[in-house]
Amino acid sequence: MAEQADQPIVTAAILVIGDEILSGRTKDKNIGYIAEYLTAIGIDVREVRIVSDVEDDIVAAVNALRERYTHVFTTGGIGPTHDDITADSVAKALGVPIDIDPRAKALLLERIPADQLNEARLRMARIPEGAALIANSVSKAPGFSIKNVHVMAGVPTIMQAMLDALAPTLATGTKMLSRSIPAGLKEGDVAAPLGQLQKDFPDVSMGSYPGFQEGVGFTTTLVLRSRDEARLDQATAAVEAMLTAARAGTRVDP
Amino acid sequence: MAEQADQPIVTAAILVIGDEILSGRTKDKNIGYIAEYLTAIGIDVREVRIVSDVEDDIVAAVNALRERYTHVFTTGGIGPTHDDITADSVAKALGVPIDIDPRAKALLLERIPADQLNEARLRMARIPEGAALIANSVSKAPGFSIKNVHVMAGVPTIMQAMLDALAPTLATGTKMLSRSIPAGLKEGDVAAPLGQLQKDFPDVSMGSYPGFQEGVGFTTTLVLRSRDEARLDQATAAVEAMLTAARAGTRVDP
Repeated sequence: MAEQADQPIVTAAILVIGDEILSGRTKDKNIGYIAEYLTAIGIDVREVRIVSDVEDDIVAAVNALRERYTHVFTTGGIGPTHDDITADSVAKALGVPIDIDPRAKALLLERIPADQLNEARLRMARIPEGAALIANSVSKAPGFSIKNVHVMAGVPTIMQAMLDALAPTLATGTKMLSRSIPAGLKEGDVAAPLGQLQKDFPDVSMGSYPGFQEGVGFTTTLVLRSRDEARLDQATAAVEAMLTAARAGTRVDP
Repeated sequence: MAEQADQPIVTAAILVIGDEILSGRTKDKNIGYIAEYLTAIGIDVREVRIVSDVEDDIVAAVNALRERYTHVFTTGGIGPTHDDITADSVAKALGVPIDIDPRAKALLLERIPADQLNEARLRMARIPEGAALIANSVSKAPGFSIKNVHVMAGVPTIMQAMLDALAPTLATGTKMLSRSIPAGLKEGDVAAPLGQLQKDFPDVSMGSYPGFQEGVGFTTTLVLRSRDEARLDQATAAVEAMLTAARAGTRVDP
């Protein structure tokens, strides 16, 4: 697209770390939240991975994703227990030393009395060398950003507070805009004319999303996405005209 | 572990395909369901990926995951519209031809009148050569299994019906058993003795999961996992004794 130089595209991956998500014991609440949040500020989430609390797996995923996308956001594994190995794994992935960070320790001391700041709790102050801290307004123990990797907590309320603190510091791009259109038709009846319109508007992504509601049956929602509002409006008008014609059983012009 | 020969470990990855999940517009409801389901029948989910509706991305993810794990379960992208490219992408990943499958077409005709089985709907009968069909008791359009890749719908009710149909055909392993123990202590107070117990029971995975409840504050749940029930019972007793001592402020023997 000609306007691409003026419209930087900023991409991201989300890396969720935790055996408890993979076992299904805990249902992830962070992916959808982060995805929606980043989309709204002009960062396209292109991939998500969930890996277990195994150093090799975390290192491999961090390195695969940080080379491919503008940002990588991790959640989970930064607490005080032996299974919290995210900070050390990220340091290893980036090849930098890690140790107790005086800034992070000072933050912990704002909430934890000095005589309770035991070795385990001090693990939460382990920060890779050269990282910027991410503030945690809920429980003080910070996350951190190093290069393009942003390490956040797994507890949703804390992750959300960290994302609020982190977001203003991020490189963002031109927002992906979207229009959601209830089709009022079955997917199979809208597929052919929609596919034709996708060819007419190659710069507007057109998705068709089936749903199923008890009592109602199948529903279809069309979602159009583009960074160019004028083109999005044109495509939306074309799709709505197509739907009106299709609902009336009229042959739609190719 | 000595008993590994008698206790096969069967692993899996889940691959969620769909731009709507990555944009946050649709919140995934399948990962947690599949993870819990597979864990219960003796299949360990080791990794999850979410990728967009882009052929290269789907092909790369399918090939990375099918070589690494016993099973790969995909959701999404098998409907009738132009953005439904999962079946073709899986065929490409596996290097096999794909075409309209007479068995799948017959299933579609059980629900769709012949004069409505248009070209778009027939796309739902495109099945890679050599695949076994996965029954869909909700809306007939089948999923399929080819080699160790199991392709299912994205709509949760349909995916769940497919998983019920598929599960009895799967190679499963010895179930991972788990015990969930509310700690009644902060993570930082339980971390040191828990880390020591993890060393005493290297064959029992011990995880500590913090939660945050409005009004209650932080909670800690310990989760112990093993395939060996006797060892799990021993570890559970040891952890409960440790917690009792820690709650009483007693020094815990190393």
